[in-house]
Amino acid sequence: MNNYKPANFNQVKFESGLWHERLDTILAKTIPSQYKKLKESGILGSLDLPQPMPELTIPRSEGGFTTQIFWDSDVGKWIEAASFALSHRRDEKIIKQIEEITDQLEAAQADDGYLNCWYLGREPEKRWTNLRDNHELYNAGHLIEGAVAYYHATGSRRLISIFERYIDHIAELFGADDNQRPGYPGHQEIELALVKLYHITGNKKHLDLASYFIDQRGSLPHYFETEMLARGDTYEQYHFDNFEYSQSHLPVREQTQVLGHAVRAIYMYTAMADLYMEQGDESLKKTCEILWQDVTETRMYITGGFGPSKHNEGFTTEYDLPNDTAYAETCASVAMIFWAQRMLNIDLDGQYADVLELALYNNTLAGISTDGTQYFYDNKLESDGTQQRWDWHPCPCCTMNVSRLVASVSGYFYSTNDHSLAVHLYGGNSANLQVGDCKIYVRETSNYPWSGNIKLELSPEFETNFSLKLRIPGWAKNVSAKLNGETVQIKGKVINGYLSLDRQWQKGDVVELDLPMPAERIYANPNVKFDLGRVAIRRGPMVYCIEQADNKGLSLEAVKLPRGAEIKANFESDLLNGITILELDAVIVDDADWQRDLYRTVPPAETPTKVKAIPYYSWCNRGSNKMFVWIKE
Amino acid sequence: MNNYKPANFNQVKFESGLWHERLDTILAKTIPSQYKKLKESGILGSLDLPQPMPELTIPRSEGGFTTQIFWDSDVGKWIEAASFALSHRRDEKIIKQIEEITDQLEAAQADDGYLNCWYLGREPEKRWTNLRDNHELYNAGHLIEGAVAYYHATGSRRLISIFERYIDHIAELFGADDNQRPGYPGHQEIELALVKLYHITGNKKHLDLASYFIDQRGSLPHYFETEMLARGDTYEQYHFDNFEYSQSHLPVREQTQVLGHAVRAIYMYTAMADLYMEQGDESLKKTCEILWQDVTETRMYITGGFGPSKHNEGFTTEYDLPNDTAYAETCASVAMIFWAQRMLNIDLDGQYADVLELALYNNTLAGISTDGTQYFYDNKLESDGTQQRWDWHPCPCCTMNVSRLVASVSGYFYSTNDHSLAVHLYGGNSANLQVGDCKIYVRETSNYPWSGNIKLELSPEFETNFSLKLRIPGWAKNVSAKLNGETVQIKGKVINGYLSLDRQWQKGDVVELDLPMPAERIYANPNVKFDLGRVAIRRGPMVYCIEQADNKGLSLEAVKLPRGAEIKANFESDLLNGITILELDAVIVDDADWQRDLYRTVPPAETPTKVKAIPYYSWCNRGSNKMFVWIKE
Repeated sequence: MNNYKPANFNQVKFESGLWHERLDTILAKTIPSQYKKLKESGILGSLDLPQPMPELTIPRSEGGFTTQIFWDSDVGKWIEAASFALSHRRDEKIIKQIEEITDQLEAAQADDGYLNCWYLGREPEKRWTNLRDNHELYNAGHLIEGAVAYYHATGSRRLISIFERYIDHIAELFGADDNQRPGYPGHQEIELALVKLYHITGNKKHLDLASYFIDQRGSLPHYFETEMLARGDTYEQYHFDNFEYSQSHLPVREQTQVLGHAVRAIYMYTAMADLYMEQGDESLKKTCEILWQDVTETRMYITGGFGPSKHNEGFTTEYDLPNDTAYAETCASVAMIFWAQRMLNIDLDGQYADVLELALYNNTLAGISTDGTQYFYDNKLESDGTQQRWDWHPCPCCTMNVSRLVASVSGYFYSTNDHSLAVHLYGGNSANLQVGDCKIYVRETSNYPWSGNIKLELSPEFETNFSLKLRIPGWAKNVSAKLNGETVQIKGKVINGYLSLDRQWQKGDVVELDLPMPAERIYANPNVKFDLGRVAIRRGPMVYCIEQADNKGLSLEAVKLPRGAEIKANFESDLLNGITILELDAVIVDDADWQRDLYRTVPPAETPTKVKAIPYYSWCNRGSNKMFVWIKE
Repeated sequence: MNNYKPANFNQVKFESGLWHERLDTILAKTIPSQYKKLKESGILGSLDLPQPMPELTIPRSEGGFTTQIFWDSDVGKWIEAASFALSHRRDEKIIKQIEEITDQLEAAQADDGYLNCWYLGREPEKRWTNLRDNHELYNAGHLIEGAVAYYHATGSRRLISIFERYIDHIAELFGADDNQRPGYPGHQEIELALVKLYHITGNKKHLDLASYFIDQRGSLPHYFETEMLARGDTYEQYHFDNFEYSQSHLPVREQTQVLGHAVRAIYMYTAMADLYMEQGDESLKKTCEILWQDVTETRMYITGGFGPSKHNEGFTTEYDLPNDTAYAETCASVAMIFWAQRMLNIDLDGQYADVLELALYNNTLAGISTDGTQYFYDNKLESDGTQQRWDWHPCPCCTMNVSRLVASVSGYFYSTNDHSLAVHLYGGNSANLQVGDCKIYVRETSNYPWSGNIKLELSPEFETNFSLKLRIPGWAKNVSAKLNGETVQIKGKVINGYLSLDRQWQKGDVVELDLPMPAERIYANPNVKFDLGRVAIRRGPMVYCIEQADNKGLSLEAVKLPRGAEIKANFESDLLNGITILELDAVIVDDADWQRDLYRTVPPAETPTKVKAIPYYSWCNRGSNKMFVWIKE
């Protein structure tokens, strides 16, 4: 196959700009503050078994459920984020913390390899009785991902070994044999973790188990039903009421609509793409393509958010994209970045990179505050000023999901195969890559995402022939490029969103790319009723919003942006760690010419007014505030 | 004083048109169907005491409250509605039904005069322990209003006598003396009923009790607090959390904002205006004027609905007028008609008549279906198609409130004082009125509210001098008038919205009034953020809406009404009992020129399209439907 393999996160270093700053903040602020929170909230302590605490920290819901059963996964995600961070700047304190956690996990692990601290500590007799709700396989998955990242960062296999034993136990228990249970996770996650583990261990059992979980999903008799009846539970007790919620309503290859819990769904699609990449089953790829089309053409916020509904933390109907009640969970856009990366490496197609970039710079980056210690769980596109960031969350999944994503974002910039080097994302960085047997040092000078002037210097070890594939974002028009100072004719050379430069490359070759970044008006498909008569603004990969903090005294609801009115861009280095703001020549509908009338036949006057817009990701860093992405036109 | 007195409902007969039809429907369909529902729901049966039913028909809420304690009031309101109806067409069956209820009430009444069937039947030991929540005085009020209407319709005093005894008991219990309790109703209503009773009995005790309840309200120590502590209840148990809810947070004369439960508030203002009329206390009038200004300038829906919030069934903050979640309870606009009528008779000022007419033709009339057997409790100004009419309601207050209002609407058309005859509302009718000692027969020929061509023929018993005051609605422009065929110069003769024609009138005098009725665009004050960028349409007193039933296949959210686009009016006699519809030259933003894009930089195209609008009151008579009052501009 001609598939690409992404450069690992530890091959790319940020030298300046947005990602340099974000990664610094994650290292210096986020990882330590998350560790502190994990400790304070009792999550780290819960690894010491048994846990005879009389009261739960997270109370049970009416159905007897507590999100406390997810705690292992939070530990796993923190290890993963911290390990990504380590690879950028070694930190003995963090290594010690991870080693201590490893000690705890080692001590907790049962003789048969089982390792779930909730069940081992509190309800050992109930293990594996509720895959639908109780996240045992999900927790295992996140811990495995942590172990894999720690291995990449340090070379240590101690954590990996613990989970190899756990997986031996799981693989013995679940499967198609008569003495096995035909189960699979209620919350998908372990599948993609197993593929990562397989990449390290080379143990086919790991890949086969991932494959089994995917293939078995949605088959009849329905495992979650069998298991529910065995527990003595009733259908009425199931809050989510349907199997669409966990994408187990149909075998995965028969699914054509993106439904249910958004994170579960997109983790599953990621694993399906992973398995296609490993095994080449075209039906998995085809299904992914159908689902990709469904979600990006009818169910995606302009900010790269997914899953509008709070009820199921997920998807509803086509074009149902409300702004003020948008759920758009941070975890779901992180998941989308995973899936898009897999699709992009299967087929080098800019449609995947465009969504990856959109989700990254907007919904995902919004999930963490400027100072790196506060979070959004849900990412609304309109706020009446009541939404605020969290220091922590009763279900802190998003906190470590955004930190592990940002800490590993360097892993999304480049992919290679035997004869190509593809550049997906831009931003000042240097990378040690390899095409075929030639090591190539790449250095990018740019101020992306604030400017589209990009300079890439390539230094192959030796002169070598390969195809350099430069992504031309879907939003970019009037693009130009130079090779060693000479203009490149790009017409006909951009295929599926990538400009191909095929030649004998040598040390010191310089490619310059100019992606003009005018601020542009964006309109939604009229089927999105919430956005009718409204316009959004995008500049480069950034979607903008207007926030009260920048527009004091203005009624933001009353702002209208006339078609054709000028929009000026300015970089403000002192604002919110440095952002490009937009100044809009807007109008405001105010009550200046109104008497005390509540209604009248004369339309309200419109007064010209300057309105400042900021990148969506940077909102709500100055207290709770009114905010709008979609502005009246 | 120069105050006006309204002609009673039994002095005016409708001869044609909208009110003729509505009244016919109320008589033929609504009154009998409501009686049936009262019987089926157990409400009539609950008057037979004791009531040892093991289960409540209306279950108690967590706080131990059940709306079943309101049942007496539903009986009272039905008697009232049925009695109004009787005066238009005597019906022995209805008389028999009311007499049977009277037998039940007579049998239920305690020896000391107490008469509340909930307490007598179920919790006799708890009577008068919770005025704040349990509606004893409210129930008494509605039964008194029923008794008064029945007396006007038939001359029978039997019901009146029962309630004279009950009031004796109440007046002994509540008052300023040391051996009395300083209480007042949690839900105001009895105050205005007592004024009506006083008009029949002339018993000053009845007026004084009303006055006491109003004067005592909000004084300290707070009665509801005293009473709560005596019950052993806590502050936390009180769902509504504040005394604004029942307008007892301050003495009434210190209130300057319209707050809390809308029906309670407006019934109270009605009683305050009544008491001013009887007693001349200027501070009550002044307070009413301040509150009138507050509510009509900042808290009134364009449909004459009041109280946006479901939580407190009432008022929130200034300009908080959401459309899709509007509560705008039918009872609240009925209450507003009561209050507006009182204010209008105190000061003949068209601002009161304008609001009365607006609330009557829109929010109130919407509360009952075309066929007279279905209802709205809340009156939204925008529906996604999920709102539907009720056959009945667990708290059926609105059902009988709208029927008693429509059945007595003839009482809102005319007022007189010693030297004036004021005409407030128009529509084909004949009336037997009296100015000074001269009886005057008035006959109006018109097709109002569908046309503003009005012809009034006056036939005084003898030639007499008086001032005819014809209301010129606030919405009317380019008005013209003729007296016996001669054009009247109206310039300078319209004072506070009334055209004064002062002369010696004689039999056969004819006044013609032309109130042109072009469809007009209405804009909301920009502080009403929900209506920004939107326009509503009004023609004469009618506010219009667009409903899916008339616009099949159109996405109503995507309809825009360009400024200046033509609006044509057409009377459609076969539609919804005959209504004037409007045809709008609108545009629709559709996806015809969209590919599968979800977002793009090219604005959506706008296709011209005809959209049909109907009067707001007539929506949702063809099943559940999407509907909008405020249309994008």
